[in-house]
Amino acid sequence: MTDVKGDRSKAPHQQDDPDLYVHVTRRTEEGVWIRGAKAHQTGCLNSHWMIVMPTLRLGPEDRDFAIVGAVPADAPGITYVYGRQSCDTRHLEGSRLDADNARFSGQEAMVIFEDVFIPNHLIFMDGETDYAAMLVERFTCYHRRSYVCKSGVGDVLIGAAAAVAEANGVDKASHVKDKLVEMTHLNETIYSTGIASSYQAKPMKSGVYLNDDMIANVCKHHVTKMPYEIGRLAQDLAGGLMVTMPSERDLDSDEIGDLLRKYLKGRSDIPTETRMRLLRLIENMTLGRNAVGYLTESMHGAGSPQAQRIQIGRQMELDYKKQLARRLAGVGGEEPVPAEGGYFERVFETEEG
Amino acid sequence: MTDVKGDRSKAPHQQDDPDLYVHVTRRTEEGVWIRGAKAHQTGCLNSHWMIVMPTLRLGPEDRDFAIVGAVPADAPGITYVYGRQSCDTRHLEGSRLDADNARFSGQEAMVIFEDVFIPNHLIFMDGETDYAAMLVERFTCYHRRSYVCKSGVGDVLIGAAAAVAEANGVDKASHVKDKLVEMTHLNETIYSTGIASSYQAKPMKSGVYLNDDMIANVCKHHVTKMPYEIGRLAQDLAGGLMVTMPSERDLDSDEIGDLLRKYLKGRSDIPTETRMRLLRLIENMTLGRNAVGYLTESMHGAGSPQAQRIQIGRQMELDYKKQLARRLAGVGGEEPVPAEGGYFERVFETEEG
Amino acid sequence: MTDVKGDRSKAPHQQDDPDLYVHVTRRTEEGVWIRGAKAHQTGCLNSHWMIVMPTLRLGPEDRDFAIVGAVPADAPGITYVYGRQSCDTRHLEGSRLDADNARFSGQEAMVIFEDVFIPNHLIFMDGETDYAAMLVERFTCYHRRSYVCKSGVGDVLIGAAAAVAEANGVDKASHVKDKLVEMTHLNETIYSTGIASSYQAKPMKSGVYLNDDMIANVCKHHVTKMPYEIGRLAQDLAGGLMVTMPSERDLDSDEIGDLLRKYLKGRSDIPTETRMRLLRLIENMTLGRNAVGYLTESMHGAGSPQAQRIQIGRQMELDYKKQLARRLAGVGGEEPVPAEGGYFERVFETEEG
Amino acid sequence: MTDVKGDRSKAPHQQDDPDLYVHVTRRTEEGVWIRGAKAHQTGCLNSHWMIVMPTLRLGPEDRDFAIVGAVPADAPGITYVYGRQSCDTRHLEGSRLDADNARFSGQEAMVIFEDVFIPNHLIFMDGETDYAAMLVERFTCYHRRSYVCKSGVGDVLIGAAAAVAEANGVDKASHVKDKLVEMTHLNETIYSTGIASSYQAKPMKSGVYLNDDMIANVCKHHVTKMPYEIGRLAQDLAGGLMVTMPSERDLDSDEIGDLLRKYLKGRSDIPTETRMRLLRLIENMTLGRNAVGYLTESMHGAGSPQAQRIQIGRQMELDYKKQLARRLAGVGGEEPVPAEGGYFERVFETEEG
Repeated sequence: MTDVKGDRSKAPHQQDDPDLYVHVTRRTEEGVWIRGAKAHQTGCLNSHWMIVMPTLRLGPEDRDFAIVGAVPADAPGITYVYGRQSCDTRHLEGSRLDADNARFSGQEAMVIFEDVFIPNHLIFMDGETDYAAMLVERFTCYHRRSYVCKSGVGDVLIGAAAAVAEANGVDKASHVKDKLVEMTHLNETIYSTGIASSYQAKPMKSGVYLNDDMIANVCKHHVTKMPYEIGRLAQDLAGGLMVTMPSERDLDSDEIGDLLRKYLKGRSDIPTETRMRLLRLIENMTLGRNAVGYLTESMHGAGSPQAQRIQIGRQMELDYKKQLARRLAGVGGEEPVPAEGGYFERVFETEEG
Repeated sequence: MTDVKGDRSKAPHQQDDPDLYVHVTRRTEEGVWIRGAKAHQTGCLNSHWMIVMPTLRLGPEDRDFAIVGAVPADAPGITYVYGRQSCDTRHLEGSRLDADNARFSGQEAMVIFEDVFIPNHLIFMDGETDYAAMLVERFTCYHRRSYVCKSGVGDVLIGAAAAVAEANGVDKASHVKDKLVEMTHLNETIYSTGIASSYQAKPMKSGVYLNDDMIANVCKHHVTKMPYEIGRLAQDLAGGLMVTMPSERDLDSDEIGDLLRKYLKGRSDIPTETRMRLLRLIENMTLGRNAVGYLTESMHGAGSPQAQRIQIGRQMELDYKKQLARRLAGVGGEEPVPAEGGYFERVFETEEG
Repeated sequence: MTDVKGDRSKAPHQQDDPDLYVHVTRRTEEGVWIRGAKAHQTGCLNSHWMIVMPTLRLGPEDRDFAIVGAVPADAPGITYVYGRQSCDTRHLEGSRLDADNARFSGQEAMVIFEDVFIPNHLIFMDGETDYAAMLVERFTCYHRRSYVCKSGVGDVLIGAAAAVAEANGVDKASHVKDKLVEMTHLNETIYSTGIASSYQAKPMKSGVYLNDDMIANVCKHHVTKMPYEIGRLAQDLAGGLMVTMPSERDLDSDEIGDLLRKYLKGRSDIPTETRMRLLRLIENMTLGRNAVGYLTESMHGAGSPQAQRIQIGRQMELDYKKQLARRLAGVGGEEPVPAEGGYFERVFETEEG
Repeated sequence: MTDVKGDRSKAPHQQDDPDLYVHVTRRTEEGVWIRGAKAHQTGCLNSHWMIVMPTLRLGPEDRDFAIVGAVPADAPGITYVYGRQSCDTRHLEGSRLDADNARFSGQEAMVIFEDVFIPNHLIFMDGETDYAAMLVERFTCYHRRSYVCKSGVGDVLIGAAAAVAEANGVDKASHVKDKLVEMTHLNETIYSTGIASSYQAKPMKSGVYLNDDMIANVCKHHVTKMPYEIGRLAQDLAGGLMVTMPSERDLDSDEIGDLLRKYLKGRSDIPTETRMRLLRLIENMTLGRNAVGYLTESMHGAGSPQAQRIQIGRQMELDYKKQLARRLAGVGGEEPVPAEGGYFERVFETEEG
């Protein structure tokens, strides 16, 4: 979905280089040819098919940019460029410790389309600019809610911080316990706003359910902030050693390995290497490869913070709320405020709703 | 439920005056006699019956304090003392404007029991100190979730702030719009955490459903902060006139009424009195009678902030989360972390859950 | 200074009623006659003289509004209208307890000028619209720094919260101590930004010193938020009794006075009335008369929050900071960034500075 | 100063391995021999001399740990172990772009002392455990104030964020401007609390000036939070490309270099490489090598957050503030509160102060 966008103060058709948004360059009897590039494609390298779609509201002059279609991941004309991530080369060092989280990591790639063909039967939209905004909004409604996944990542970070505090011998301190409570409070806020959006899903005409858009935006907007605060608190509990700790090669060295095992020991019944591995995990999640997913992608994935604020603003039913206030303030008459706009239907199973 | 509590560093039986927690003073064949006082009883003056119950975890020596029973609201020996509220006497001034919110307000009373009788058939607990903590926790689980109601009050305040901004002629300014979005974002967080707790309810052995306790505490904990921030933003949008505005008697005065109508005018198509009424409503909700309910009661009702933090701390499954972290950090073996404690059942309909 | 402003989306000369900004209505050989109204005049009722001045940047068409002059407080044509404050009438009840803070309070009045005369020798500006903005900025530079005074009020509230925690028997709890630390941290931030602005004062051409404008705005901007958080924490430590406590007349009553003294007791060595007085003081400072000064006036006095953000934005030297970033990023050449704009002079006594 | 500390729940003499705090192992006529290790030594590799000193309050049984002395950086028995930093090996790639900030970086090392000799004339403390706490407090008073330096780093990050926003074509958007204002507001808070602490310095008996300890702690405590928020906002303004951008080798590649220059273009008059360099600078400061100094070291250097809270708590003069509150609440007599403890001397040049 995400075009590279060029100069963001200009619409697609206004760009100096029209290729900065994916668009149709040629039409034949059999289909269309597209050109452009999509950025930040998480997991595209593991996929068999890709579906291209517009990334923003389009105007009548953006007609060629209103293209939705499916292409095989290995279609001629596609180039993938793998992105760098913080600390990515630690995985090439043959590391068993420094590259933690040792088991999992993610990647993003940029996908460049140089005259890629989409046959007619795989085209789902072509030129219907009026529907681009609705398409984007429905997609982001689902996608923003899906950021509830970060609460699972947060649980790991809470666990890592608690385990390091234990290894440091400070897990009984009241301020340590309180910070773990704060991290949990924030993390459960992500979790519960995410699931609330799903529980409030309503069927569309097609019968497909669409989750609550307001709450999906509230959830994602918290995700642009709370993981950063959870990460900050994890660094607080980890201690400075997380960023000054010698490398695993030093630990493995005949000359100084024993010295490090001696001096980097925390609580005497917990192996030094366990403590170091936990610190590397927190480094990985707050500065390293997984910080890309846990922090920066939490910020920008499924729309940057301002995109959620715009969407919350669109749905905040100010006119209805102003009527509520006016009535309580004794402005105007006694008649009840008509419950237009779904305000009550959202909360109660009323006769109207 | 809420005893007056005396010296909070001491258990009920340790108080210099045992009456500071409601307790049984005498037992007969027919029932028990109780003495003590309950504070902050919202709505008790509108009730027909009251149920008294313990307010905290009790130990074996607190046996006489483990009493639950029903009493008619007009039972002999009961004294009600009505509490003061900020700006309460404005309602006695014959006000039509200064006392806004003109339609609704609440009250709290202190209830003093001087040897009040409870017959055997209305006693539901007597001396079972072991169950006092569970009783309190279940009650607060329901009660903390019920604070979702503050999101309705928040909607009114958002509406009032928007209406005043309009009357001031600044509703198109980007920072004004952004503050309304922020208020909505916070308010919807209260709403969605509240309903999420209900949606995640599970049946107990009795068949009665109990809502999710972790999320109920997360919801209530936000309620101890977010209404204050929403209130602060409402005061920001209202402008300083909210606290320097002349009284309604000045407005009604022959001598200066017209001057006030002239000089307190905002946008010329909105009557001065409308603007004044909206400002009085915000004053009422952030400093006056309804601030008691929207702010201070949001802080302390159903348990003060620290009570939620304790409850979140109890349920945060640190051992399980530490295992998750250790496994990703490569500490210990390869075997999966056993999903004890309901971690996965809470999220997924798994075979175990 | 603060005109009543009418419709804020319009300049003075665009208002439907020109009187909504103080302006010259007539000029004679001896002086000028003015008309209009100033809002929120703290302490004007204690003053011998008033100086009127414009409240915002003026354009060429606002010429009649560019008037600065001195008038005696009792000049013919002036009307004062005293503002209402939350809980103001408690002072009329003959209270000894409910109206606390018993010793001090403030007031604001609206000042209406109906053709008030200013003789030539007391006119300091008349029509020089170009200088209105500079006049406002210099005034607010001093005035915003002066909000450091709220840190003194904050100290009282910290003391009141600590004293109530003591009376409640919870002053040894770690979370209580931590909240007092947080209140102090915030309050000292106000104090230290305030004094830093003064210490960084520089002489103007006249020899008069002007304090640092950036820091004055940073100080005042914190004052629009931190007192609200300090007040919230004070309410947390006070407990709900602050808003449900019976009135002083109940305490004085023969019938129930003793009951209240018995049941509102906290720690047994502290008189009930002491506890009640402290609670009333916190009520007074967070909901009552002094909340007007400590909260809402902290928000709007010397300019509402957005006014500080505009002023911070004007002075943030983005061009210089962009150059710093470009150089470290290796964009452009090796030559040092020229220290224009006073960046270094502000920090170091350099040769240029 | 910072010992490796082992199990933090135990005093130095209680550790299973006494070497976890630097201590005297042997005394001779000529001097003492020490053993132990100091962690997180910023810049030690650039130094000629090191001064070892205790890291915390010591008790009578910690006598051997109360050692202060100077040692040459190349004294026999010292081992330095260089710490890893996020993205450190990018500097070994022969990078011209990915390793930005290209000009500067820092390092920390662990210093291990295996029986290092200190001659008598270089010993400044030996066994005076009573003075260890005062020594630590004075050192941290200076050191915490010195964290004002992070406001200079913050200025660079503000500049980088502004420059990227410009390259993205969004620098005119109101929310972008507002985020730059917020970053500046936070950054100037660090700056002004830092300089306020210095301006309030008082001479000690020796004639040496000691800066204000309360404000130094307030400054450092903000430094444990505000850079994280400034960093978060910088990532917001940077956009997701910061973490998904291809490597400089891809940019240099014959095959796809031109494609990247085409598709990673922002505003058409700004070279793609300029935009990429700025993004790498922000990555470097929020996730990479300089994030170590700007974030994690801001957290833990000169004491972790809780250390500042303890120090603020010690100096918050609660007894004096409680007296202020009691007097305003009408508790006790009319006599003025005696200004003990330096409360007024700190603010005013009074006769007593």
